Order: sequence, then C-alpha cells, then structure tokens
Amino acid sequence: MAEKFVSMRNLRFLLYEIFDVESLTRYPYFQDHSREIFEMVLDTGEKMGRDLLHPYFAEMDRNPPEFVDGKVKVLPMVRTLMKECGEGGWIGAHASYERGGQQMPTLVLNAFRFIFCAANYSASVYPFLTGGAAQLIESFGSEDLIETYVPRMFSGEWQGTMALTEPQAGSSLTDLATTAEPTDAGYYKIKGQKIFISAADHDGVDNVVNLLLARIKGAPPGVKGISMFVVPQKRIGENGKLEGNDLLTTGIYHKLGYRGSPITQLSLGENDDCRGWLVGEPNKGLRYMFQLMNEARIDVGMSAAAIASAAYYASLQYTQERPQGRPVTSKDPTQPQVPIIEHADVKRMLLFQRAVVEGSMSLIFQCARYVDLSHVLDGEEKERCELLLDLLTPIAKSYPAEMGSLAVSAGLQCLGGYGYCDEFPLEQHYRDMRIHPIHEGTTGIQGMDLLGRKVVMKGGKAFMLYLQELEKTIEAARALEPLKPHADDLQRATETLKDVTGRLTGIAAEGKIDLFLADATLYLELFGIIAIAWQWLVQAVAARKALDTDSIEAERNFYTGKLYTCRYFFAYELPKIEGLARRLKACDGLTVEMKEAFFED
Amino acid sequence: MAEKFVSMRNLRFLLYEIFDVESLTRYPYFQDHSREIFEMVLDTGEKMGRDLLHPYFAEMDRNPPEFVDGKVKVLPMVRTLMKECGEGGWIGAHASYERGGQQMPTLVLNAFRFIFCAANYSASVYPFLTGGAAQLIESFGSEDLIETYVPRMFSGEWQGTMALTEPQAGSSLTDLATTAEPTDAGYYKIKGQKIFISAADHDGVDNVVNLLLARIKGAPPGVKGISMFVVPQKRIGENGKLEGNDLLTTGIYHKLGYRGSPITQLSLGENDDCRGWLVGEPNKGLRYMFQLMNEARIDVGMSAAAIASAAYYASLQYTQERPQGRPVTSKDPTQPQVPIIEHADVKRMLLFQRAVVEGSMSLIFQCARYVDLSHVLDGEEKERCELLLDLLTPIAKSYPAEMGSLAVSAGLQCLGGYGYCDEFPLEQHYRDMRIHPIHEGTTGIQGMDLLGRKVVMKGGKAFMLYLQELEKTIEAARALEPLKPHADDLQRATETLKDVTGRLTGIAAEGKIDLFLADATLYLELFGIIAIAWQWLVQAVAARKALDTDSIEAERNFYTGKLYTCRYFFAYELPKIEGLARRLKACDGLTVEMKEAFFED
Repeated sequence: MAEKFVSMRNLRFLLYEIFDVESLTRYPYFQDHSREIFEMVLDTGEKMGRDLLHPYFAEMDRNPPEFVDGKVKVLPMVRTLMKECGEGGWIGAHASYERGGQQMPTLVLNAFRFIFCAANYSASVYPFLTGGAAQLIESFGSEDLIETYVPRMFSGEWQGTMALTEPQAGSSLTDLATTAEPTDAGYYKIKGQKIFISAADHDGVDNVVNLLLARIKGAPPGVKGISMFVVPQKRIGENGKLEGNDLLTTGIYHKLGYRGSPITQLSLGENDDCRGWLVGEPNKGLRYMFQLMNEARIDVGMSAAAIASAAYYASLQYTQERPQGRPVTSKDPTQPQVPIIEHADVKRMLLFQRAVVEGSMSLIFQCARYVDLSHVLDGEEKERCELLLDLLTPIAKSYPAEMGSLAVSAGLQCLGGYGYCDEFPLEQHYRDMRIHPIHEGTTGIQGMDLLGRKVVMKGGKAFMLYLQELEKTIEAARALEPLKPHADDLQRATETLKDVTGRLTGIAAEGKIDLFLADATLYLELFGIIAIAWQWLVQAVAARKALDTDSIEAERNFYTGKLYTCRYFFAYELPKIEGLARRLKACDGLTVEMKEAFFED
Repeated sequence: MAEKFVSMRNLRFLLYEIFDVESLTRYPYFQDHSREIFEMVLDTGEKMGRDLLHPYFAEMDRNPPEFVDGKVKVLPMVRTLMKECGEGGWIGAHASYERGGQQMPTLVLNAFRFIFCAANYSASVYPFLTGGAAQLIESFGSEDLIETYVPRMFSGEWQGTMALTEPQAGSSLTDLATTAEPTDAGYYKIKGQKIFISAADHDGVDNVVNLLLARIKGAPPGVKGISMFVVPQKRIGENGKLEGNDLLTTGIYHKLGYRGSPITQLSLGENDDCRGWLVGEPNKGLRYMFQLMNEARIDVGMSAAAIASAAYYASLQYTQERPQGRPVTSKDPTQPQVPIIEHADVKRMLLFQRAVVEGSMSLIFQCARYVDLSHVLDGEEKERCELLLDLLTPIAKSYPAEMGSLAVSAGLQCLGGYGYCDEFPLEQHYRDMRIHPIHEGTTGIQGMDLLGRKVVMKGGKAFMLYLQELEKTIEAARALEPLKPHADDLQRATETLKDVTGRLTGIAAEGKIDLFLADATLYLELFGIIAIAWQWLVQAVAARKALDTDSIEAERNFYTGKLYTCRYFFAYELPKIEGLARRLKACDGLTVEMKEAFFED
C-alpha cells in the first residue's frame, strides 16, 4: 500500500504562499486565529488522515455497507470517526462561536478536508456531509430547529444529508414530487420517494437528519414551489426519546466505487406519519439548498483532486521503485534496467497528474479565499468575491472531476498490469473517482450553469471581473522574465475565451437558445483549461520569486517542480483550447439537428 | 440488462459495402466461399453471442475464477463454450484446409469475433487465444508439434496461451530470464517465472498449451537470445496419457475488470522437470511471437471497440427510455418531460460513442482486409498490404483502447447515477475496458513502435503508402459535393501530419533520439485521430452514394446516421490535432529534462 497520499508542503504553499490565509486574521471575524492555530489544524488533519482514515481505505471498499433487515450496517470505524470528528470540533468548525463553531477560515478547513478525502474518500463523506447539512439549518432554520438538531450533528451523534433526487427527477429538480401537507401541530406530513441519498441510513450514528426538498400542497409547479424540510429518520417523541418517523430505507445501491459510503433509497410516509419541519419560508427551498449545493459542488472538485492526489503519489512511488527498460539512447541489454520514472513518457504521465492535482487544488483554494473574503468584506468587494465564486463554481466542480478521472487513469497506466490489480490502490481510485462527474450536478449540468447562467448573469459582470483577475496574473508574470512566454500564452488564451464567449452570447442574443447551449460542455472544458492555466501561472509567479531567495535544496526542488509542472500545463494542456475554440465558434447545430431515428441502425 | 450489444447492420455495411469481402472469393485461396457462407458465419456468431456468451456477461464478473488448492476453477460455461467453438470449427477457422481449418477470410472472422467480444469480452478470450496460439505452432512448429497440439486446440479440448511477461520484464522483453536447457531427449528443461498469463490454468479444458518465450543457455543477451517453446501444463507421457509437467500455478490476480478470465502466475521447473519443445529455430522466438503479437494487438483494438459497442447500445437504449427535463427552449414545468436523447448534450455523448465505435471498427476491418490481401497477393502488392498493416497496427490497437475508454465513460455518464450502479452494465464495461490500454503493449509502447519503428522503416515507405491511401479517399470524397468540406479538412490534416512527421524525423536525423521519441504517445494520438477521420470519410463516401439510390426508410436512417457521425467526427474530434500538432512541433525536451528530484515535494 502506498503511504503518501497528499503533499503537506503543497498545502502550506497554497495556504501561506499563494492565498495568504494569515492575512485573514486582520479581520475581526478571524482575529483569534493565527498561523500556529492553522498549523495545529494541518497537523491534526495529517494525523487523523494517516491513522484514522487511510488504514480503512481498502477495507471499506471490500466490506461495503450491508442492507440487513431494512437497516444499513457499516464498519465500526464510522462511529469512531464521527465521534472523533465531533469531539475535535471538526464537523462544526466552520460555524460562528455563537453556534458552537470555531469561525475557522474555509481555506484552512479545505486543507483539512483535502487530507481526509485523499486518505479515504468514502469515510470523509460522513462528517463533512453532516457539517454541510447543519450549516443549512443554522443559516435558514428557526432557533428551535437549530437548538434541536445542530449540536447533535456537530457532535457527530447524528448524521446530516441532502435529500433531493427522486426517481422521476434526477437532474431535473423542477419535477420533484414529494409532498408536504401542513398540520395544525406545526409540522408537515411528508410523502414520497428519494433515491441516491448519501448516508441517509447507517448504524454509525444514532439518528439521521435529512435536509429534504418537497412540495407543499398547492405550491406552484416547477422550482418555484419547492420547500425545504428537516426530516429526521427518528423524531423526538413526547417523552424526549427518539421514535420512528415513518421513514423507510428501501435499499442501497451497489456501486462501481465510493463503496464505503451507503447510498440509499428512501420511502417517506407510507403510514402517513412522516413528519417534516419547514426550514425558512415556503417555496424557497431550492434557493436555500443551493447554498449547500454550491459548497457541495466545490467539495466534489476538492474530493476529486484529493483522490487524484492519492493516485499521483501512489504512481510516483511505483515509478521510482520499478526498474524496467533502458534509456532510448543506450539500449545495451547487459546494462541494468532503470527505474521507469527515467522514461520521458512516464514523466509526462506524472506531470499530467501533478498538473491536474495541483492546478485543481489551487483553483479550489482560490474559491475558498473568495468564500472567506465574502464573509468579512462588504459592498462592492463582497459582491466581487461572490460573483467570482459563482462563476468559478462549475469549473471548480467539473475540471477536477473530469480531468481527475483522466489523471487517475494515467496513474493506473504508470503501473501497467499492476495498476489493473487490487494489490495496488490505483484501481480503487479509478472506481472511486468516477462518481465525481456525476453527483451534485453532472458535467453537462455544470456546462449549462456556466454558460447559460453564470457567464451572462448581471450583464456579464462576473465574467468581466474574472477577465480582470486573469489580467492581473498576466501582468505579474510578465514582470518576471522567464515567465513572459506563459504570460503571452495566457493573454492569447484570454482573447480566445473572449472571442468564443462573444460568438456564443451573440447567438443567444438572436434568441437561438438551443444553439447557444448545444456545446455548453465544451465551453466548460475550454473555460476550465484557461482557469487552471491561470492558477498555474499564479503558482509559477510565487515559485519563481521564491527560487530567487531560497537556498535549501529540497525547497528549490519543490519550486523547480512547480515551474516544470506549469511549463507542462502550458505546453501540453493549454493548446487543447485551440480545437475546442474552433468547434465552439462553428456552432452549426449538429447535435441539435441530429434525430433519434438516425441512431437506429 | 440491455439486449443489444452490436449492430449487425453495421457489420454488414463494413463487410459488404466498404471492404467488399465478396471480392476475395475471386482468389483461389478463398474461392469456395460466398456471401451465403459469410451470412451463415454472421448468423451463427449472432446466435452464439446472444445465447451462449451474453447471458453470462454479469455472472462471470460476479463469480470470477477461483484459485483453490493450486488449481483455477471457472464457471462450467467455459467448458461448454470451448466445446461449442471447437465443434463448430471456430477456433481453427482461420487455418488452411490441410491444417483442419476453413480458410475463412480474416474480415469475416473479425466480424464473428467482434460479436463475441461485445457479448462477453472475458468469455471470448478463451477460444480466440487458443486459435492464435495454435496458429503460431502451425506457422513455425515442426510437423510433430503440429500433430500433437493443433488438433486438440482447434477442438477446444486444450487451451492455448502466450507466455511472455516475467516479474522483472514487463514491457522490457529484452530482460526475459526464463531459461531453457537442452537435453539429449530432444526437449528442453524450462526454469523460470511468468506473470500476467491469460487463461494459463482453468478447469474448462483438459490441458493448457503455453507458447512461451525463454532463453536457451548460452544465448546472446537481449532480444536476440529469445526462443519460443511449447510448454504444456500436462505433457503426454510414455503411455500416451497426460502427466504433470512441473508447471505450477502460483496465483491469480484480482482485477478491476475482465474478471471472467483468469490471469495467472506460473512457476516453471521447480523440480527441474518442466519440459518445453522448441518452436522453429533457436533465438528467433521474438520474431515468431510478433506474428501472434501483431494479431493480438489488433484483437485488443477490436475487443475495445466491441466493449464500447455494447456500452453504446446500452446507453442509447437508456437515453431513449428515460424521461428527464425539457427542451431548453420550452421549460414549462407543467409540460411532460422528454426522453433525455432529445437533449443536445446527450446526443453529443451518443455521437461521440458511435464515432469511436464505428470509426475504430472500420480501421480494424481495414487492417483485416490487408491481412486477407497479403495472403492472396504477391510481390509489390503483397508488400504494400503488409507495410500498411504494420504501420496501422499500433493505431488499431491504441485508438480503440484509449478512446474506447472515454467512449464507455460517456456511455456511463448518459445514465447519470445509474451508470455508476451495477443494475446496469455500464460500470462493468468501464472496468472491463480499462485493460486494453495496458495489455499486449501499453499505449506508450505503441507510440514508440509507431514513431520509432513503423514510420521510419524502409525509408518511410509504409508512411508514403499510407499518405497515398489518404489521398485516394480525399479524391473520392471531393467528387461528392456534400463531402467536399470533409475532404478539405482531411487534406489539411494530412498536411499537418506530414509537417509534424517531418519535424520529428528531422530531429531523429540530428541524432537526438530522446527528443525524437519524447512525445511519441502524442504522435500516436495525432496519427490515430487522422486515421479514424480517414475511415469515417471512407464510410461517408459509401453512405452518401447509397443514400442517392436507397429508398427504404430504415436504410436511409442508417446512412444518414453515418453521415451525421462522420460530421461529428470532423467537427469535434479532428480539431484536436491542432493542439497536438502545436505541442509536437515545439519538441522542447520538457519531459526529457524533468528530473526525479523535482517530483519530490
């Protein structure tokens, strides 16, 4: 089993050298924090990841949750994990002091979570999903709901979930049909089916708190009639004890990967006695959910980058230890073989992985910085952070998910036949990773979100702000002689992005919405490559400057590696936008015209 | 479970309308054949695929071979399959009449095998690997070896294998270390270890015949000292009965996919009594093996295309049946949902799959035609076919393997969360497929083979012949008005290929072999995209002409679908060469310079 799954050095590079998390402590909200505290978080994360999560990486895959007598059984480590995360304050660390949290910057929490996800993705889901669900109740729930649920979720006693999907409404939330009927007692009677709900039943906790979308009887059709409810698996009875809430688990899914976490099917209100409590106002459920959903999307990107990180270090180690073949310039069979990391094509596959992993991480930490700043700034500055976050969310979700899948595949390839066998972790990473382009909005949905909503919102304001960010980075890079070619490349890429965006929004302006959105997934891909190039240039500027002053060899190697990986990205990945731009600008309606009958043979 | 896994219409299109298999019957070797016979082959293949192989697709995955008491146990269906394939003459159908075969054209056999692979890839391996191994003995073995082994392999009683890989020599065959010591009795004593050997032990047959590479004591180092041996699992004793041959199975691998077929570890000669019989002359083993290896590589491409075919039809069916969402131009939530095949992005994913599947198939059938012609032609014409086959083999192996992996992933994506669950076949196809970029020479190895060997061999003769083939197709397309833009695109792509090839061979001419080969994998990718564009244009020419005369609606839909898929390929796939060409021409040695130390954080 490979030992290393994350680079702590790289996390510190991102936190301190790129996104300057220490500067946040200037703001009153974060003023109690300091580098020492952040270091303690990182050290604890590393220790828990290594000792508590990583040892169960393969075991949780090979002993997935079982559905026995209508209940889901998981490994005992889940209870241990929830308890330790609760006791350590990690589930509610994001929350304000008054809510029992630690007002911890998202940047630092992201680093902590990244370690967990890289150590054991399935395990990481239990505590962090709970934290996210609790945050929804904190933000929009009544004091009563908050008092009842949040402390027991923060303590890890109760699991939180997001319950959106229904059999007839996968990506189409507008078609949610679960109903909520008001009663005089203040609660609603819930009736319906939910599918693909993560962790909505397991014996690692004493209760499950579903944040569930349903339609109050008489509500308007579509997304305007969706409300949010707290629907606990067990409700608190009159005697204060937990009692059943007419919420049945009807099955769990057998999945390609991500097997350590149970994904459940739920049936609500079969006996007309499933109670739900409204969160916030009626018919605003989707808006509330999207607070969590947007975070969940960035979490997906982070998890994807984390799995790709673990795969990268496993393949790096293998390529350093495995002798095979000789340099192409000296094929003498009597000479010893060389470790395969000496072959250019293997280095290319490693650089590809690193470029995806660390480029994705940088973008995700960029988003976390916007989250943190939007908490402490106001007015224009706050809006700027929020708009940039909104714009970049579909990229932060989909680039790591899509490219991370390819990165893990490259890691598997580095191991040859062994990559295909379960003696090594790569095959599991390959399976685990594949969920990420699907859940919390498929890649296709992200493309529509980016082009159809984010790029055009507020008259393109977010997009203009983003172009300014690119410009700042290009200027900073241009000031450093060795980075000038990259600055020029990103400048040209920015022009391409503007060009393509102008062409597409022009088509939208003509009212041809189907044509406008037909290749939204390709637009997402183009946009994503440029965003990661931007983040690589941000990193290269810092690495280049550090190299001028740092004389410790390990540090110099780290920064030099950053510069090589940046060069890799600009040489091998950025040119992919050329073919994409050509296709996007053609915009000839091929996929709109194609008819179902032509797929028949 | 999806029912359709292959389009028989498309197989007939390739056989009769594109590669004109009937024309082969003009040659004496194939003169007994006719369209009626070919149809019988297709019908039998379809029936066996549907009734014998496909029903075990999931079962073989869920009940993989077990290693019990040193022996490998497989499902009883394997014995049934081998027996039926033997009795039907399908294992030896390629062979000449005098060897007990049917002199069946490779084109037709490929169609037959394609059906098997699409129905159940793991199952298909048992008979076809046996046929390939038998063919090696036929081609290079003594009459005695042929008589002893070939009939029992053709009958399906004995399994054949290729035993190359060793623990210290994966991709580096030069480092094979298994030894063969001559004895006075005519046989050699074999000693060594082999790993990753497909089907080298199972209870679906009575014996296993390994075609094994080893080094005769005193042989020169490297590939020049490798010989080929027949090393049976059980040898024929003096009484004519089978007896042990000191060949132990030491384990089987637990794999990501392709689980229905046992991949074994072998230990030979632990008691100094493992006997092998030399095939052909000493030290020519690698050359012999490459006859089979080249076929095996094309078979990998075919298997990959076949798995992608099954995935395509499964996802096509799902998208036709699954209602979800509404057209982007009419989002009224009170209107019913539409099947997801009506969404442009879903059609794009389906077109991508079809473009990869049918483009790959066309290239593989093109190769099969070269095989068939090289049997019946001689002189210049024969050499032409052989050179084109040599040149295209790494493409026929790697394009379907690499792009097929992405195609299956797109199929899985069409199903959303269900694609990730084992109720549907997509997740298994995704796992099964991933072996193909690895076995029979990784994609990296194929890139080195293409650029370092095939493109430059005989002064670039094969490459020049290939350019002539492209030119012929471009001319044919240009004669049809609607295909002119595609003809122009392929013309430009050809210029790009020449340009890149010239740049790289120029670097080779300067003696910079490491630079020349550093991006061979990208060159393979570029070359592959253009080769598939060529094959799509070949198909489009035929479809376009057929549309002018055919009036049956189903037929018109089929041809129209071909033209749309060709358009898809030229619009979405071919432009990818632009970024690749830019990178290949830069050729700045980035991956050559990159040092191991820079990967350390």
